[in-house]
Amino acid sequence: MRTLKLTVEYDGTDFCGYQAQGKGERTVQSVLSEALAILSPREELALYGAGRTDTGVHALGQVVSFHTESGLPIDRWAIALNSLLPPDVSVARAEEADEGFHARFSARQRHYRYLVWTRRTRSAVWGRYSLHYRRPLEIEPMREAAKLLIGTHDFASYARGGGNPGMTTVRDLRRLSVRRMSNGLLISATATGFLRTMVRNLAGALITVGAGEMPPDALTEILNLRDRSRNPIPPAAPHGLCLLRVDY
Amino acid sequence: MRTLKLTVEYDGTDFCGYQAQGKGERTVQSVLSEALAILSPREELALYGAGRTDTGVHALGQVVSFHTESGLPIDRWAIALNSLLPPDVSVARAEEADEGFHARFSARQRHYRYLVWTRRTRSAVWGRYSLHYRRPLEIEPMREAAKLLIGTHDFASYARGGGNPGMTTVRDLRRLSVRRMSNGLLISATATGFLRTMVRNLAGALITVGAGEMPPDALTEILNLRDRSRNPIPPAAPHGLCLLRVDY
Repeated sequence: MRTLKLTVEYDGTDFCGYQAQGKGERTVQSVLSEALAILSPREELALYGAGRTDTGVHALGQVVSFHTESGLPIDRWAIALNSLLPPDVSVARAEEADEGFHARFSARQRHYRYLVWTRRTRSAVWGRYSLHYRRPLEIEPMREAAKLLIGTHDFASYARGGGNPGMTTVRDLRRLSVRRMSNGLLISATATGFLRTMVRNLAGALITVGAGEMPPDALTEILNLRDRSRNPIPPAAPHGLCLLRVDY
Repeated sequence: MRTLKLTVEYDGTDFCGYQAQGKGERTVQSVLSEALAILSPREELALYGAGRTDTGVHALGQVVSFHTESGLPIDRWAIALNSLLPPDVSVARAEEADEGFHARFSARQRHYRYLVWTRRTRSAVWGRYSLHYRRPLEIEPMREAAKLLIGTHDFASYARGGGNPGMTTVRDLRRLSVRRMSNGLLISATATGFLRTMVRNLAGALITVGAGEMPPDALTEILNLRDRSRNPIPPAAPHGLCLLRVDY
């Protein structure tokens, strides 16, 4: 029995997220499972993904692990899988991992980025990968607000549905930064782990501050409420988000 | 009568180039014409494009000019056109130009880039915008070859069909450079003007040198033949190419 670690890229536009709730939806995991079933037809593989990205969210460094009895040499897996996968998903790397490796539970930290396109006119190329926000955004208040949110906090106010009942909503947000790019902004977020929709909720909150609709410390007030239903800011749209890398 | 200058972006994947030879094909110009016909229905507009990009070639800075009787304020054109255009084309900017301005004939120089993805595994995101070349490429011989081609030369060997009969095939190639990127190479080319398929022929030639299949000075020998039919190297695939900018 071997443990394999795949680094997976996808354009999330036409996927119902990494892993769907319902049946019959096109998810990254279902598409990967189909390709693996052709490659190793004599076993039923259980796939574990590092981040359960939402519908429309992209990835350049999703990590997926599984156990297999297949004897296929390690340097053949990526090429073989890519020949079976559709163009909007690819396996960048396949590696042999330690027996106890688990893409989700072994992860030390996850890096996401959120792109905001602020040019007045939309982009024909970056439209799939960025939120188009037409009004000007002030970067300094966004940076000030980002600094206030960094650290170990209860992020229930920034989690979809306020988190799962009975599970902690405390997370260690290690980086939240805002950088200017040509025609837009790049928000970077790193944490040991994120709650559901947390990065999009943080991005939406920073954009609200950048637009001058709230002062930076309003985000701390929202944080301290520990209640998603009292956070008036909607999450930023999924297509601006990308899972960049997972560290182990 | 006003003269307007549009800076146009497009994802060339689903276009038969900027301007088709045949009728009924989906071209950037036909899609722009349809949008303009809705915006200014009482006139027949003649559009001039700075570069007649081939099928599958992208643009971030194509320039299109036309004359119009429309009184629509200049700051409304881009937004109005974008609301009528499909997602894979957009007008980044619309400006008022001098009466004598012509997107093609007034252009001083054109900048193109060609992306080569050299990672062993294909990209799920950059697949639309780069040539996937699996074998390793040596950048130094490519740079050496590029330097030999810069300057004012007869580029008939690097033009589709050897150029148009009766027209000069001399061009002033001002920049041809190769830069390393993460997972690939970026070839930049600048000239006052290019012959048909010239950038793709130059990119294909540099890749052949980078792969070690020809020495750098073989490209000068091919240049001196002034004959496309004696150039054995096929043009690089169109989807790696992008018209970046046109200077006036």
